Amino acid sequence: MSRTAVNLKLAKRMDYLRASEIRELLKLTQRPEVISFAGGLPAAELFPTHEMAEVTRLVMEREGSSALQYSTTEGDPDLRHKIATRMNARLGTRVEADDILITSGSQQGLEFSGKVLIDEGDVVLCESPTYLGALNAFRAYSPRFVPVETDDDGMVPEAVARALREHPGAKFIYVIPDFQNPSGRTWSLARRQALLELAAAHEVAVLEDGPYSELRFEGEPLPALKALDEHDLVIYLGTFSKIFCPGLRTAWLAAPKSLRSKYVLVKQGADLHTGTLVQRQVATYLDHYDLDANIVRLCALYRERRDAMVRCLEQELPPTVTFTRPAGGLFLWATFPATVNARELLEVCVRANVAFVPGGAFFCEPGHENTARLNFSYCGPERIEEGCRRFGKAVREFLG
Amino acid sequence: MSRTAVNLKLAKRMDYLRASEIRELLKLTQRPEVISFAGGLPAAELFPTHEMAEVTRLVMEREGSSALQYSTTEGDPDLRHKIATRMNARLGTRVEADDILITSGSQQGLEFSGKVLIDEGDVVLCESPTYLGALNAFRAYSPRFVPVETDDDGMVPEAVARALREHPGAKFIYVIPDFQNPSGRTWSLARRQALLELAAAHEVAVLEDGPYSELRFEGEPLPALKALDEHDLVIYLGTFSKIFCPGLRTAWLAAPKSLRSKYVLVKQGADLHTGTLVQRQVATYLDHYDLDANIVRLCALYRERRDAMVRCLEQELPPTVTFTRPAGGLFLWATFPATVNARELLEVCVRANVAFVPGGAFFCEPGHENTARLNFSYCGPERIEEGCRRFGKAVREFLG
Repeated sequence: MSRTAVNLKLAKRMDYLRASEIRELLKLTQRPEVISFAGGLPAAELFPTHEMAEVTRLVMEREGSSALQYSTTEGDPDLRHKIATRMNARLGTRVEADDILITSGSQQGLEFSGKVLIDEGDVVLCESPTYLGALNAFRAYSPRFVPVETDDDGMVPEAVARALREHPGAKFIYVIPDFQNPSGRTWSLARRQALLELAAAHEVAVLEDGPYSELRFEGEPLPALKALDEHDLVIYLGTFSKIFCPGLRTAWLAAPKSLRSKYVLVKQGADLHTGTLVQRQVATYLDHYDLDANIVRLCALYRERRDAMVRCLEQELPPTVTFTRPAGGLFLWATFPATVNARELLEVCVRANVAFVPGGAFFCEPGHENTARLNFSYCGPERIEEGCRRFGKAVREFLG
Repeated sequence: MSRTAVNLKLAKRMDYLRASEIRELLKLTQRPEVISFAGGLPAAELFPTHEMAEVTRLVMEREGSSALQYSTTEGDPDLRHKIATRMNARLGTRVEADDILITSGSQQGLEFSGKVLIDEGDVVLCESPTYLGALNAFRAYSPRFVPVETDDDGMVPEAVARALREHPGAKFIYVIPDFQNPSGRTWSLARRQALLELAAAHEVAVLEDGPYSELRFEGEPLPALKALDEHDLVIYLGTFSKIFCPGLRTAWLAAPKSLRSKYVLVKQGADLHTGTLVQRQVATYLDHYDLDANIVRLCALYRERRDAMVRCLEQELPPTVTFTRPAGGLFLWATFPATVNARELLEVCVRANVAFVPGGAFFCEPGHENTARLNFSYCGPERIEEGCRRFGKAVREFLG
């Protein structure tokens, strides 16, 4: 087409953006013979295919063209009301419909948070490790990431306090308190309270990402940070992707009152509003079907898969390899001896037709190459067992 | 909820973002007794409500859970292929499926273009007037807008040349060559060619926004800038919002080859991908129904409405008020005597139960307060006539 393509100049921020390794990996592992623990896909077995056809028929019949027209930036009032009610019942929050902004996936809530809060060079505190997709979303606004020491109970309060003292202008603290991606860890109540006290004392926002909170397989739910927040400093991100289905890209954000109108302005500039029909589909589903019962079935399915993976890894992996036993969510996290480079291990594994994500990419600082994230939500137990056998064999060979 | 809300610090860019006047206005004019020419809503009469229920049933039956799962950032391959084929047939382009990125509305394509191209202080050339939503999208990246003299045939080449000489680092030129929002103007072929030659000589990208191109009521279609582009410098934004229905938020971007992967990275960080189901709904609609025949019906409907508005304004407005006679699109543009402030006129009009958008907001420079945008796509002819009578009466009173 082009005789001579001219050389177009990009914005500097494009130097910081790079393709997600998970995304490139997923391409490599799409051969059907590969058992992939690399993705983060929910189980498709329980997706409401019949129900979606039925609710669409209902919406078109009852609401007609208004469900296909432009609608408000904040989102469908009925859906926002349902989400607020659900959050308060399930997470212990006290939010109102007006606090809710409908977003196109939680990823959009992450990106918006970068846009609303980050100036170039601003400090963002993260768990260590943290969610790769969040780092990618924030990176467009050129922050400085400061990893905070994190153990099995969450961020270590002394480390949070030190980081906030060393970086007095820090803009926000990004956390996934329940069944974290990638580590599978869940914060204790004490750690939640300690974080909020420190954030309030330093007047720093907390960005709480809660996609997995309702996917608990055992034990009692802990209150969301948003529920414990007495200083209106928590931005909460929720989504239907992991408890319903991700292909609808329907999620939400509950912002502090002081930030609400700012997020709406950013949404308006970004895409005017989330799809009208898809919001009516989700709201109508919630009217006619029992999402909570579906989540119970989903948790039973995932519990079985987690059990299969944990049991099989215990048999297959040498004792020098440790891994987490998450009480919910989609992922577990393995740590190899310090000399192992999981990127190299992955190459061996892909030849053996099994895949995972090397853990290094989940850290905002270099190193940690001896770690891996394994997904247990997508494959059935038999396939998980076969995959773990392949994985164990490859690991044992790799370790010599 | 909050004992004491803490004071959270925002990014500096939030100082530049302000609520769209159109959006605030639309709130004021939602009383049913107001005849509003202020919005930009397509006619809802031809929205495919029955068809959307039917295609959703088909997609769920045939494709099942895969249509509710995560999917690729670039978009559904089938839909991308259909869009490329359609663009080539209707606009004279030579794009391939791989050139197409599915976006959540054209607004997202505008925002992404700001993100990919604009560093703080970079110059962006715009028509005068130009689309308000684009200015809002770009503003988050703190450009310097430079308006270029524009007449009834498009940007004046001498003015483009001068602006490019004066601003040698200009990042891109933003244009709506067909039935522009807000002016209703369409660029001549000579002006299209002149712009591309100047852009190539100065190695500047052209962002072509084409939401109304297929809504031509009379005359021969002109080739898109993208079709005339021999140097691969045009970023084309297309959308189903104005030719199908906007509530699906399904649009696309055809980028130069050198920018393709950059836009994909930005899309990945922004929201991972546009909804899987909605893309399959649109693609399945295109398989089973005749979109082009629907566009013919839509153009007939809009032609009748434009005729009603033009005829009635000719009768009602004094000769000191001029207005455009667009050959397509959704809007016409009125110019009042220089002393008129259309914001003040609007207050009078709203009391008379008719609304429009004051034109000042569509300029990136101050002034031009004696202008107005009127939409003719949303109301039927009788309502348009009644609205024009109210408008004419208010204008005559206002002019004394």
